[in-house]
Amino acid sequence: MLSKTHAKYIQSLHHKKFRDAENCFIAEGGKVVLELLSSKKFRCREIYGLQQWLNSNEAFIRKYFSGPLEVIQDYELEKISALTTPSQVLAVFEKDENRPVSVLNKISLVLDDIQDPGNLGTIIRIADWFGIKDIVCSLHTADMYNPKVVQSTMGSLGRVNVLYTELALWIQQHRNVKLYAAALDGKSIKDIQLREGLLLIGNEGKGISEQLMKMADEKITIPKTGAAESLNAAVATGIVLSHIIF
Amino acid sequence: MLSKTHAKYIQSLHHKKFRDAENCFIAEGGKVVLELLSSKKFRCREIYGLQQWLNSNEAFIRKYFSGPLEVIQDYELEKISALTTPSQVLAVFEKDENRPVSVLNKISLVLDDIQDPGNLGTIIRIADWFGIKDIVCSLHTADMYNPKVVQSTMGSLGRVNVLYTELALWIQQHRNVKLYAAALDGKSIKDIQLREGLLLIGNEGKGISEQLMKMADEKITIPKTGAAESLNAAVATGIVLSHIIF
Repeated sequence: MLSKTHAKYIQSLHHKKFRDAENCFIAEGGKVVLELLSSKKFRCREIYGLQQWLNSNEAFIRKYFSGPLEVIQDYELEKISALTTPSQVLAVFEKDENRPVSVLNKISLVLDDIQDPGNLGTIIRIADWFGIKDIVCSLHTADMYNPKVVQSTMGSLGRVNVLYTELALWIQQHRNVKLYAAALDGKSIKDIQLREGLLLIGNEGKGISEQLMKMADEKITIPKTGAAESLNAAVATGIVLSHIIF
Repeated sequence: MLSKTHAKYIQSLHHKKFRDAENCFIAEGGKVVLELLSSKKFRCREIYGLQQWLNSNEAFIRKYFSGPLEVIQDYELEKISALTTPSQVLAVFEKDENRPVSVLNKISLVLDDIQDPGNLGTIIRIADWFGIKDIVCSLHTADMYNPKVVQSTMGSLGRVNVLYTELALWIQQHRNVKLYAAALDGKSIKDIQLREGLLLIGNEGKGISEQLMKMADEKITIPKTGAAESLNAAVATGIVLSHIIF
């Protein structure tokens, strides 16, 4: 039985202001919760699950978490969930600190104001698929702890390091590797292969800001054979990475 | 001034049942509405816009549409919109008939139960980017006229033909070209280039159904260098197309 006060507390974590104040976030769904637990990246505080789900997964959970496992009912889960169709379990995790990123000998992503939480989550999942370890985000990029971001990473949040920082300054400090900007013109992705570098992805509507575009060493583009004006930002990230990674 | 009855009518078009009964759908946002108008693929019935937007776009609209242009207020648009942040204009279009598809001398997409409207819209936009003219969908694929689909196509709906049909039967009738299944194993996308063929994409959670997988001539896959279990369906579609299109 979930108390009214505690239900309200969890609902408050749907909003960034309260996630920042409490230094924690929620994760939902069996796959996401179990992957975050086993990644050991985020300390788990509480788990709320339907009886049946907890029964089936308790043995696994107990390898990583000794705190309270709260049995809740469907209607209670619905109340605290940020999803339109809640899914069996919700957990509260502590946020990770903002860790510095080393960019040598690898490819990292740099996101300039990605606004849509679904896009950010999908990009984190893409990074994880291709073995990208670090994503550096502008301060106006969607919050990585937004429930929709957490959901659409499908657990990859536990394996990819996401840093928020003042991008222009950060790029200035990392001129030891090349900066490649994904753009509507430039060198074709078919003609470029990298072992090291920063791949800069722009905002959904406005693209890459002028200031950052000027800092790019090379523009790279996805050749278009049809008529659409642009591609979704996450799709473009996936396509570029799939071609340039050596 | 929008009448209560008419506001209710437009709200009803948020739901497939009413779209089917009325044979029409809504499109929102300046870019989407103008692109659908100029594509001439769908007959426009009504346009509701903010005064300022209509003023700026009337000349263009009148090239394609002689019907009523209704000025509405912000709060009225909010009432009839299916978006969380409504955007200046909403139009009602008539649905297009389900047209047959020729598969010779080109690449077409085949979707097996893509459930998420955002994914379907994004896939239509990807198809349009790469010049794919036809998408063939299983009967359980999300509705192409769902407001979220229309929105995420960003206007590409006017340039891509989407057919809904019983997939196994349709594939049987189109064995004159090869069927390639996007899967977690198979031939690498780096080793395959096509001028003609059907590219089969599976459901977000379950992948491609067993029945359809058996019909595939070849499985193709995106090489994984990291740890994520899978990629988002739209992202995977974009990556595969970007590699295999000759």
